[in-house]
Amino acid sequence: MAIHVLHYLHDGRAQWGVVADGVITPIPGEFSSTGAFIAANPVERLMTLNGPSIPESKVQWLSPVTTDQQFICQGANYRQHMIESGMDPDVKKFNMIFTKATSCIVAANSAVVKPDAVRLLDYEIELGLVLKRDITSRETITDENLHEYIAGAVIVNDYSARDIQIPQMQFYKGKSYRTFGPVGPYLCLLEKQDMPKLKELVLTLTVNGTVRQNDTTAGLVYGPAETLSELSGVQDLRTGDLLATGTPSGCALSIPSPEKQRAAAQLPEAEKWRLFLKMQEDRPQYLQIGDVVEAQIVSYDRSINLGTQRNLVVEEAA
Amino acid sequence: MAIHVLHYLHDGRAQWGVVADGVITPIPGEFSSTGAFIAANPVERLMTLNGPSIPESKVQWLSPVTTDQQFICQGANYRQHMIESGMDPDVKKFNMIFTKATSCIVAANSAVVKPDAVRLLDYEIELGLVLKRDITSRETITDENLHEYIAGAVIVNDYSARDIQIPQMQFYKGKSYRTFGPVGPYLCLLEKQDMPKLKELVLTLTVNGTVRQNDTTAGLVYGPAETLSELSGVQDLRTGDLLATGTPSGCALSIPSPEKQRAAAQLPEAEKWRLFLKMQEDRPQYLQIGDVVEAQIVSYDRSINLGTQRNLVVEEAA
Repeated sequence: MAIHVLHYLHDGRAQWGVVADGVITPIPGEFSSTGAFIAANPVERLMTLNGPSIPESKVQWLSPVTTDQQFICQGANYRQHMIESGMDPDVKKFNMIFTKATSCIVAANSAVVKPDAVRLLDYEIELGLVLKRDITSRETITDENLHEYIAGAVIVNDYSARDIQIPQMQFYKGKSYRTFGPVGPYLCLLEKQDMPKLKELVLTLTVNGTVRQNDTTAGLVYGPAETLSELSGVQDLRTGDLLATGTPSGCALSIPSPEKQRAAAQLPEAEKWRLFLKMQEDRPQYLQIGDVVEAQIVSYDRSINLGTQRNLVVEEAA
Repeated sequence: MAIHVLHYLHDGRAQWGVVADGVITPIPGEFSSTGAFIAANPVERLMTLNGPSIPESKVQWLSPVTTDQQFICQGANYRQHMIESGMDPDVKKFNMIFTKATSCIVAANSAVVKPDAVRLLDYEIELGLVLKRDITSRETITDENLHEYIAGAVIVNDYSARDIQIPQMQFYKGKSYRTFGPVGPYLCLLEKQDMPKLKELVLTLTVNGTVRQNDTTAGLVYGPAETLSELSGVQDLRTGDLLATGTPSGCALSIPSPEKQRAAAQLPEAEKWRLFLKMQEDRPQYLQIGDVVEAQIVSYDRSINLGTQRNLVVEEAA
């Protein structure tokens, strides 16, 4: 059975609790990181948790992924988003991996700061997966043993400064600004029988109440087992690390087709980027100060409900 | 005065010591990370260090940057390397930033493992800078206050799988394979008066004794002060974090000029990458099993000598 946990501040202390129907049952113990929390709290133990409860409305949300974990991201992992990002899904035959600085991680109801220098602020709802164990050598991960590697799921919004990310080619900087990574509110801890539901999650993102992104994880190109298998052959991963699995279509970003890009490639480099920026600036979908972005991820059967992220877009403080 | 320190294993214990003329004076204390070591050991204190010494030959080198720090890299930060990487230095008007997974960090004399799946293994000697303090908000860093932000310097070799890095566009994966980040051997701790020497360092890399890269840090496009100022407006940095400042020309990689790329851009995407790989595979400069890569960084006046990295290229274990 899926168990939803919340990381929160109450009485000035960071705590973890099981949350259901707006009520939190605190989990005893202090855990310095997401990895320490997961290692100490197997789902079976949390199922029998008892004790006094507190209303969720009395606490302040914290990110269920702490900033001392890795924040690894897949890029262009839904076909339609590949197309809107200017890629041909039948040609991109690799699992694109990049990172965000963990200092961008904030609580799910945090304001998102639009830096003064950023003109093209975009949203990206993503399913985030949190690791259950360390991986320090090449492993073969399949849908059958996936539950040994994935502890649970969270909502991630991979906010992106397109005017930095795209012309500067490496995504890291344009996606790492402080507040650009709301995570949570709930970390849904999963058991073996819940794993198939990772392919049955509905992602919905609205801006000022209008739906912009709405798709299901059935559309993921590189699934979790395949992705973790490949990553295990490259680098170490730790319990509690976060893998954001990419966003579906509906972002503000819209890059012309590879055919049109081929034509644009004949232009001098500087002119090509000037046209790119001009074209994007004409798109009203980019976020403005005062916009409210909401993101939800729920399974068809509603046994997994990762909660609602709500981010107000604000100016950079002077 | 610049002080050279070594992180090493002796009697089964990780320790730090001041090293000079092949002799180590151990520094009392246990430090769990590079940040903890730097915070506890200002240069002035190390200058008056006394005690019994041990020959450097009796210890096993460790990386002076621990894997719990950030590993942030600048790309295409020397004009001639930009050109060999297929960029026009007069058009690339931004400081390219990416990361390597810290699990790739190894000691300076570690073997470098060429994964079976990697065909185009390349080297990149780089000056690495280690942070002296946390940066958690936008700051103005200049050559005058740089000594408050940078603790010292190390050699970094940013090994890169070009057949992964270039066609997959995001550099992270192709540069993050385990062993792809030798750091050290020495962390040279600097004082205010040493800072100008960061622009007077000679970088030399050889493969099997033949010089492949030889340049000075005078050629850096985006210097440390400018880079840290920009990064401070994006993300948090912590004491002990590593900034690799980019590599000069002489890598195995050679990508045609932007003009020729414009012609190639007319080809179908798959054909373009097939030609790229074929062209690179004809270059004998790429590393092969058994090759020995040596890297050195020394100041003109030799008061800063970051030591010698020596990496044997080996096969992936079965």
